[in-house]
Amino acid sequence: MSLRLLSFLIVFGCFSVTAQEGTLKVNQDRLESQIFELAKFGIQENGETERVAFSDADVEAQKWVMNTMVSLGLETNIDFAGNLIGRRKGKDSSKKPISFGSHIDRVPNGGNYDGCVGSMASLEVINTLNENNIVTEHSLEIMIFSNEEGGVMGSRALAGHLGKDALKVINSTGYSMGEGIMRLGGDTTRIADVTRQKGEIAAFLELHIEQGGILEKENLDIGIVEGIVGLKWWDVEFTGFANHAGTTPMNSRQDALLAASKFIIAVSETANSFEGAQVATVGKIKAEPGAPNVIPGKVVTSLEIRDLSSDIIEKVYQAIKTKGEEIAKASNVQVEFRALDTTADPAIMTSSFQDAIGTSAERLGLSIKRMPSGAGHDAQDMALIAPTGMIFVPSKGGISHSPKEFTSAEDMANGANVLLHTILALDKKLE
Amino acid sequence: MSLRLLSFLIVFGCFSVTAQEGTLKVNQDRLESQIFELAKFGIQENGETERVAFSDADVEAQKWVMNTMVSLGLETNIDFAGNLIGRRKGKDSSKKPISFGSHIDRVPNGGNYDGCVGSMASLEVINTLNENNIVTEHSLEIMIFSNEEGGVMGSRALAGHLGKDALKVINSTGYSMGEGIMRLGGDTTRIADVTRQKGEIAAFLELHIEQGGILEKENLDIGIVEGIVGLKWWDVEFTGFANHAGTTPMNSRQDALLAASKFIIAVSETANSFEGAQVATVGKIKAEPGAPNVIPGKVVTSLEIRDLSSDIIEKVYQAIKTKGEEIAKASNVQVEFRALDTTADPAIMTSSFQDAIGTSAERLGLSIKRMPSGAGHDAQDMALIAPTGMIFVPSKGGISHSPKEFTSAEDMANGANVLLHTILALDKKLE
Repeated sequence: MSLRLLSFLIVFGCFSVTAQEGTLKVNQDRLESQIFELAKFGIQENGETERVAFSDADVEAQKWVMNTMVSLGLETNIDFAGNLIGRRKGKDSSKKPISFGSHIDRVPNGGNYDGCVGSMASLEVINTLNENNIVTEHSLEIMIFSNEEGGVMGSRALAGHLGKDALKVINSTGYSMGEGIMRLGGDTTRIADVTRQKGEIAAFLELHIEQGGILEKENLDIGIVEGIVGLKWWDVEFTGFANHAGTTPMNSRQDALLAASKFIIAVSETANSFEGAQVATVGKIKAEPGAPNVIPGKVVTSLEIRDLSSDIIEKVYQAIKTKGEEIAKASNVQVEFRALDTTADPAIMTSSFQDAIGTSAERLGLSIKRMPSGAGHDAQDMALIAPTGMIFVPSKGGISHSPKEFTSAEDMANGANVLLHTILALDKKLE
Repeated sequence: MSLRLLSFLIVFGCFSVTAQEGTLKVNQDRLESQIFELAKFGIQENGETERVAFSDADVEAQKWVMNTMVSLGLETNIDFAGNLIGRRKGKDSSKKPISFGSHIDRVPNGGNYDGCVGSMASLEVINTLNENNIVTEHSLEIMIFSNEEGGVMGSRALAGHLGKDALKVINSTGYSMGEGIMRLGGDTTRIADVTRQKGEIAAFLELHIEQGGILEKENLDIGIVEGIVGLKWWDVEFTGFANHAGTTPMNSRQDALLAASKFIIAVSETANSFEGAQVATVGKIKAEPGAPNVIPGKVVTSLEIRDLSSDIIEKVYQAIKTKGEEIAKASNVQVEFRALDTTADPAIMTSSFQDAIGTSAERLGLSIKRMPSGAGHDAQDMALIAPTGMIFVPSKGGISHSPKEFTSAEDMANGANVLLHTILALDKKLE
């Protein structure tokens, strides 16, 4: 064979593969049916599914996914943190794996889509590659993270910052995280060994439902996540003076609830007064003594601020704090802001991955929007140890963490196709 | 003896008695020491007293008061509702008794003054009359009402409208009202027999601490109660949509707590916007699901409105309701007002008694103010069956239902003197 012919064949071969890969599509029906299959684990009499991490349903679903991985030819294992890992060898063993996945555990009274879409789409990507006999340069690695909903436990362990105290936290199943890890096949005594160092993973990608209503509202197919917002929590305590609601004239009251009400409005107004997508929320309130005939002497509210920028979180907080102090002074009550441990730093998604996701989506004829993720995800922790990208598909009505959660089969397939083509693009581009 | 001399002696005698009665004063130190004695029943290690109705302390205190009554020469009995009654015969057995008193039970974590001042002052009035050998035309009757703090139980029974269901209500002692009545020496099977008909009591008077801060603030000695305010309670429910605090933009929220906060401010502003002494209070609030990272989908608040006029209560309510509906509409949430059973009609104090109290106080050189009572009292129910008057003395700092409750010995004695002289004035004036 002449070098010319060889060159021709190689070139032809390349073109051939490229043409095939360019039109590659996942099987939408198969993906949808897998979502329905997965929803059977934990299904209740009312047709809704309960599958909190560590529950029997969670353990059984994990086994089912593992068996599915095996049937797809993946090498599987459960790591010491209870993460289910499925590996597909690449051509070049010197290259670090391209990893992708999500989670199958659910919040109590949650929905069938959340982490399930990204998990089942990851299997579908492998299935599609198998059917088309495509072997990537990099090994591919599906990660089904343990206990995402209870504090991104599995991905935290992989990133090496799952605190020891976290293992004591008990979720609604009654099991502690430590006990839960054992139930899932992990080993709490060796949990430090699961940590992956920077450079061990070439790329991490996660497909997830948006959990908000922006894509649907703007009639768009794909969200390219720019980053996952950081969040900070505070308790805000107003101290007035509890007194008899019948004998204390309106103008002699030190009503902590009245002050807290003005504060809650100020939180909303302040968050709205800044440019950008920051959000600030008061979700929890307690008034004491809490009787209809007693003027509340003490009120504690929660305060949560989220943004892609820690600076903006701080700026919004300072503005809210100033407002709160002004309100307290004018209301003749005291106010105290107490920062809580519950903080998460913003995680910026790798810029070139955002571009790769955008290009893949556009080649598939899908409309896109770059957007922050307001919710936390496993990708947030994976971003600490690997270049990371995240793909959103629409959530109907923006509803999430609810049995009413819904994403159409077409939208799920769109997301899976973007995931597939981004993997293929990165496989070519990355060392 | 000539008629002239007789006339002279009668006139002289009258003058003599009037002069004696006009300068009559209770023994301030004795009154104060009785307050301290009473506070020993239920005293705790921390020096504060607990004496909730039906507790051992309440039963023992009742016995002690009864013994004190006996030592003062009163005929005592405990009626079927557990009220302790002490009678002092008058000159004219055809006249109906002048009754007065208050209660010795306390709220949990309450103070030493509340109903105790009126109770001990009533004993002190008898003591003072005894010492001065004054026998009134009317019989005098001290009433120490049972379980005032748990729903003016004893006075309700006397007024004939203590519902059967009320007997099932259990207070913080663990005893039901029915069991409590038995503990106090009453008899639940014969409770209807305690009812007094209109006309059976010539007058009812109650001395009580103000439980508000108006008298102290205005540096006044005596409050003449114009009436005891009526009250109405509602639950107000705001229904928005619970959603993810991270993924739901500020402008897409249906935040039930934000709407409720605006409502709480509107309640205060509306109550303030009317002339008069009406008060409106939100003392209780519950946000659901109540997590810092979830926008509240449902909030229920209490609403209480009090005034001397049922018309004004209704007017203020309608204004608040309209505001609440406007706020709900503008906030894209639903609102529902649910009236609760807890209502009390206003009780107007007998006008001529108000005058008599005022005259007595002024003759004693005390400053006065006519005012509504924002708190409920036994006098409220007694007003249903007898002409009724009520005397207030200052509460330091307006504090009530608290161990910090305080009324000075001088203020207590002022109140007791006004009670004494009002009784003497009514004794002369009334049939």
